[in-house]
Amino acid sequence: MDPMVSSFDVKGLPPRIKWLASETTQDWLEQAIGNPIEVLIDHANCERKAAGSALQLMFRYLCEPGLAEVLSPLVREELEHFERVLALLKSRGRYLEPLQAPPYAGALSKQIRKEEPERMLDTFLVAGLIEARSHERMGLLAVHSPDKELRHLYRDLLVSEARHFALYWKLAEDRFKKTLIASRLGELARVEAEILVDLHPEPRMHS
Amino acid sequence: MDPMVSSFDVKGLPPRIKWLASETTQDWLEQAIGNPIEVLIDHANCERKAAGSALQLMFRYLCEPGLAEVLSPLVREELEHFERVLALLKSRGRYLEPLQAPPYAGALSKQIRKEEPERMLDTFLVAGLIEARSHERMGLLAVHSPDKELRHLYRDLLVSEARHFALYWKLAEDRFKKTLIASRLGELARVEAEILVDLHPEPRMHS
Repeated sequence: MDPMVSSFDVKGLPPRIKWLASETTQDWLEQAIGNPIEVLIDHANCERKAAGSALQLMFRYLCEPGLAEVLSPLVREELEHFERVLALLKSRGRYLEPLQAPPYAGALSKQIRKEEPERMLDTFLVAGLIEARSHERMGLLAVHSPDKELRHLYRDLLVSEARHFALYWKLAEDRFKKTLIASRLGELARVEAEILVDLHPEPRMHS
Repeated sequence: MDPMVSSFDVKGLPPRIKWLASETTQDWLEQAIGNPIEVLIDHANCERKAAGSALQLMFRYLCEPGLAEVLSPLVREELEHFERVLALLKSRGRYLEPLQAPPYAGALSKQIRKEEPERMLDTFLVAGLIEARSHERMGLLAVHSPDKELRHLYRDLLVSEARHFALYWKLAEDRFKKTLIASRLGELARVEAEILVDLHPEPRMHS
C-alpha cells in the first residue's frame, strides 16, 4: 500500500496546506482510527494548549500593534472547539485526561530562536505549522473515521485549522519579508516532517 | 463628604455584591475619573489577565469534573471584553500599554494557601473577590464617568463581572462546605479591603 495517504483527492475537502513537507502516513491513520477516544481526548488537550499559546503571545508582545486583536478571537475559537470536543467526550461517558504529550510540539518549539525578531517569526511559523498538520490530519479523520459523529466533528473543525494557519502566516507577512518567511518556513517544515517520520507509540493527533 | 461612595443607591444598577468588606472611596473615584484612558488601558490588561488566570486553572485542574466546561466560556467572555475595550482605545488613537500593575492582585494571591484542597478554594475565592471589586468600581464609573461612551461601556461590562463572581462562588460551593467557604471568604475579603485602604498613586482599576 502507498505509505502516503492522499487525503485531499477526496472531493469536498479543502486542499492540503502546501507548506507541509510530508504527508501523513497510513500508519498514523490506522493508529488514530483504532483509538478514537484517546485521540479525541488528546485533541481537546491540543485545543486548550493552542489557546494557551496564543494567549501567551498576547502577554509577550503586549504592545505589538495588530497582534492582540487577531490573537484574542483566535483564543476564543480554540476554546469553542475545546468545549465542543469536551461535550462529545462527556456524551460518551468520558472526560479530559492528562495524556502524556508526544515529543512533537516540544521538539518543534526547540527550533524557535531566542533573539528577537527571529523569536517572533519562528513562533508564528511553528504555531502555523502545528495548525497545518492538525488540518491535514483532521481532513483524514473527517473522511476515514468509521464513526459518523467523529467524521462530522473533524470536518467542522478542520476549516478553522486552515484559517488559523493563514492567520499566523499573515501575522508573519505583516512584519517580515516574504522571502525570509518562506525560507524559514521551509526549514521548519522539514524539521516538522522529520519529527513525524517515526510513529509515536501512543495514539495522538501529532504522534 | 462621606468617604464611602454609595454607588448602589443608583437606580438601575445591580446591588453591591455583599461579600466585599469595604466600599470604594471617593478618592479612588476621583482618581479614576481624572485618568479615564489610563484606567481603560489598565482595565484591558485586567480582562486579559483574568482570561489568563482562568485558563491557568483549566491547566492546573485538568481532570476536575465540571471545571473546564465552566471556565472555558468564562475565558472567552473575558476576551470578548478585552477586545471591546481595545476597540474603544483604538477608536481614540490609543493602544495597549504595559502599565505597572498595582500591588492589589499580587498581595491577594499571596493569601492563597499552598496545599490542596485549600489552594483550590482560595483560588476560587480570590478570583471571585477581584471580580466583585471590579463589579463595584465599574458600577461607580457607569454612573459617575463624565464620558457617555465610557459610562455605557462600564454599564455593559459590569453585569458580567457580577456573574463571574457568582460563577467562582458556585465552583467553590459545589466542592466545599458552605460554612467553610463563608468563613474563608470573610477572611479574604478583610484582607482585600485592607489592601485598598491606601490609594495607590497610579490610577488603576484596583488602585
